[in-house]
Amino acid sequence: MTVSAVSAPSGATLSSAITRFEEIVGAEHVLTAGAEFLEFRDPFQPPGWDDYTPSAVVQPASVEQVQAIVRVANELGVPLWANGQGRNNGYGGGGLRLKGSVTVNLRRMNRILEINDELSYALIEPGVSFLELYAALREGSHPLMLSVPDIGWGSVIGNSLDHGITYMGYGQDHMAPCGLEVVTADGGLLRTGMGAMPGNRSWNLYRRGLGPTLDQLFMQSNFGIVTKMGVWLQPLPEFVMPMTVTSYKEDDIVALVDTLRVLLLDGTIEGVPCLLNTPSAAGMVSRSSDWWDGDGPMPAAVLDRVGRELGVGRWWGRLSLWGDGPVVDHKFAKVKAAFTAIPGVAVQGKKITPAEAENLSHPSDRVVAGVASLELIRMAGWRGGDTGGHMDFAPVIPLVGDEVMRFIKTFKPMYESAGLDFKSDLMAISARCGIYVSGSNFNFADEEETRRAYSMVRTVISEAGKLGYGVYRAHLNFMDLAADQFSFNDHAYRRFVQQIKDAVDPAGILSPGKQGIWPSAMRGQ
Amino acid sequence: MTVSAVSAPSGATLSSAITRFEEIVGAEHVLTAGAEFLEFRDPFQPPGWDDYTPSAVVQPASVEQVQAIVRVANELGVPLWANGQGRNNGYGGGGLRLKGSVTVNLRRMNRILEINDELSYALIEPGVSFLELYAALREGSHPLMLSVPDIGWGSVIGNSLDHGITYMGYGQDHMAPCGLEVVTADGGLLRTGMGAMPGNRSWNLYRRGLGPTLDQLFMQSNFGIVTKMGVWLQPLPEFVMPMTVTSYKEDDIVALVDTLRVLLLDGTIEGVPCLLNTPSAAGMVSRSSDWWDGDGPMPAAVLDRVGRELGVGRWWGRLSLWGDGPVVDHKFAKVKAAFTAIPGVAVQGKKITPAEAENLSHPSDRVVAGVASLELIRMAGWRGGDTGGHMDFAPVIPLVGDEVMRFIKTFKPMYESAGLDFKSDLMAISARCGIYVSGSNFNFADEEETRRAYSMVRTVISEAGKLGYGVYRAHLNFMDLAADQFSFNDHAYRRFVQQIKDAVDPAGILSPGKQGIWPSAMRGQ
Repeated sequence: MTVSAVSAPSGATLSSAITRFEEIVGAEHVLTAGAEFLEFRDPFQPPGWDDYTPSAVVQPASVEQVQAIVRVANELGVPLWANGQGRNNGYGGGGLRLKGSVTVNLRRMNRILEINDELSYALIEPGVSFLELYAALREGSHPLMLSVPDIGWGSVIGNSLDHGITYMGYGQDHMAPCGLEVVTADGGLLRTGMGAMPGNRSWNLYRRGLGPTLDQLFMQSNFGIVTKMGVWLQPLPEFVMPMTVTSYKEDDIVALVDTLRVLLLDGTIEGVPCLLNTPSAAGMVSRSSDWWDGDGPMPAAVLDRVGRELGVGRWWGRLSLWGDGPVVDHKFAKVKAAFTAIPGVAVQGKKITPAEAENLSHPSDRVVAGVASLELIRMAGWRGGDTGGHMDFAPVIPLVGDEVMRFIKTFKPMYESAGLDFKSDLMAISARCGIYVSGSNFNFADEEETRRAYSMVRTVISEAGKLGYGVYRAHLNFMDLAADQFSFNDHAYRRFVQQIKDAVDPAGILSPGKQGIWPSAMRGQ
Repeated sequence: MTVSAVSAPSGATLSSAITRFEEIVGAEHVLTAGAEFLEFRDPFQPPGWDDYTPSAVVQPASVEQVQAIVRVANELGVPLWANGQGRNNGYGGGGLRLKGSVTVNLRRMNRILEINDELSYALIEPGVSFLELYAALREGSHPLMLSVPDIGWGSVIGNSLDHGITYMGYGQDHMAPCGLEVVTADGGLLRTGMGAMPGNRSWNLYRRGLGPTLDQLFMQSNFGIVTKMGVWLQPLPEFVMPMTVTSYKEDDIVALVDTLRVLLLDGTIEGVPCLLNTPSAAGMVSRSSDWWDGDGPMPAAVLDRVGRELGVGRWWGRLSLWGDGPVVDHKFAKVKAAFTAIPGVAVQGKKITPAEAENLSHPSDRVVAGVASLELIRMAGWRGGDTGGHMDFAPVIPLVGDEVMRFIKTFKPMYESAGLDFKSDLMAISARCGIYVSGSNFNFADEEETRRAYSMVRTVISEAGKLGYGVYRAHLNFMDLAADQFSFNDHAYRRFVQQIKDAVDPAGILSPGKQGIWPSAMRGQ
């Protein structure tokens, strides 16, 4: 392979590339203007900001087209940026890291290739959204459930590759994906795990392979473009029970976290339960301006009132139980006893059949019971309404009450002194740690407020790094800063990952800068 | 780094290397003869066979010593082979792939660095065996359980890195390890996941990191030497219940597998339940010669008699349940009802406290209840007694009854026509697939019989590859053949892995040939 140092293409190179891409996918599937093209920027940047915009968007319809695009990119030295739907707006949405790169958007590759009831999995393409897979399961009367995120429009594959979060059993770290097909930087095609054997019968059943397992190497990285993935599904249980836990005292977080950890460790609670603070819980069903029109963060007295009136308190736990009736009953009694041992805490749960889940009145309950929808998209509008954005600071933190309290006492004042709400959702991604998703919501029609939010996220990522908390994922604007914090032994991890990057993508054409991984020509050594 | 083409060292190079290694670890920790040195061969090869023997064994006591050894190996072009204890004898034990390499054995690095009761994990060095970690948990009265393999002498880290099997909840694929420290081929040191951040508080709590997760890349590979690992432990449950399922009809395997899969998928059974055939179950407590002294495989009538007299039938399921009393009771009733719906099948279970597990009479029950011991070492002696060996053919197979039956009907006659028992143990490594560990036991004092076993394993690995079944792990003698079967798209997986190998270990000094991964100088392009 000829190695060309890449940079954002322009002029004749870009024109040549677009012509070649049009030959591959058809001219109507190469976008350089228009409404759909404009989706491929950070939607929470103020109008006129264009830090993360492509020069063109190519939408292939097949694996062969993706391979052909990659080969042309290598030949011409054109950097690509791959995405499935480009929807997680808190981290940059459809935008890309290196302005002027060409986005390879995989929405058109949206086939559900297999749904296997006996072995409870699906094999899908990257354009398949949670909404689509959910609908296919229901319309086909498959006895299966999908673990879904709050907002169902995103790509199932894209969400998995970015370590995104869903809430039922297979929402825990790495539990849903099993077996990838990947277009490599040279235009080749490999399959991971057992899929590396032609016709292997366990590609989407066995998490490993013979030799090193590569699935996780293609997540949060830029070593290939994933074109198929197996996703594990859960057989429909007899019952599912969405539950809420409400506390009216801010200091209760210590006991809430410790109680939750014990119940997760012993298997009473499964999946990814969350503890939301008042603005976060209230944001599901209302806006900040419904409650408070002053400057700066919402005062404690207002938070108390919001918590009382909406019944979400100062902390609101969301989770679900599932299984056979007697098991759900036992677990509910145990969970209720454990949390109500904290004075003033209230616990609610409603045991329903999976078929009844779509009729639940609260959108959060539907999500934790496995129903994909778009209703929680309103969460972005907490500040600014239709021009409301958020930029998430989402560090990983041990699931220990005192530690969570120390974290809050360190970081909440930083947000508040910048005039921002510390809107937070502690997602227990497994029994031992949580992702503390702390959104600084802002009105992106207000440039000054947007800059304040950016500045805040920059500060807290650095401060968190000093204290030993790393973010699980970073917005485009902070990928380098976030990666900089991982400096053990003079950045040994990054140096190792760069060795891999240079070996498998010598021309550096695949998603340069993704999570801080740059090809050698762009590293400025 | 100077890149030297490596081969097994000899003469002056070997002498220089040994001198340098002695300077690093002390002369008494560089073995070239004696009883401990002789452990580092395949113990199931007949006396005089020395295909997989080292020229020396170096036993460092610290990470720094491992780093120094690796630097010397690079400088002199000496290939190393890393192991923890070197104990899984069915795959070559303490032997190494490239005869004459220098074994870096990590037994002396046997510190348990942390046991965390609150967050249920341990941080350990590679010399720590299951027996040692188990003993430390009991002696320290920690409220924690370790998922253990049949024979407790192996390294916890080594077993994890080779995809080895244990039986409780964290025995499923990749569930126990969390966070590695690795000496890289240039003598550097990296930490994976959150450990890539200095002082990060979630290294052994969060399975991922920022950017691609590398943990699985260091498993079944030769990209680094792992010097620390976090291992997740399970809080002691209220009760644990070892169970057995006994069927007297060979054809019952179809219904047994389908029943087991449904109970795993809905979470009734957790961990890694197994279905053993008669020789496999009988081998835990007796020898072939106790039952049959004829030539060739044991006839059906004898198998029937063994199954009746030992109560293990033609199929014997071993599993355990655990949790709160009412949950265990519900699950036991459900498991019993499901299996006894197959006519003639018997189900037994005994609900005990974890503290009572050491007193269980059957060694299998103790293992599935989390007790580490050496008692099942006798399984190797099914044929040949003290000179009994086995070489495992262990393909991954979908957990579907009809498919398992087809597999047996294909492969069992091959073994029997070679005069060998088809001794098998289907280990359900997750709800969707099993590892069909099919041991061809042989008397390694008998060269002819040993050659027959080797020949058989060669045949079945190839035949399985044609049918879409890949082995989860291979004996030293068959690593290349097993890897050859993974030929999708002209060996795209192997080519990708080789790119990584050449990038991170350009001198090719780390465990050349491990699972079929050879450095460029040895690939004979």
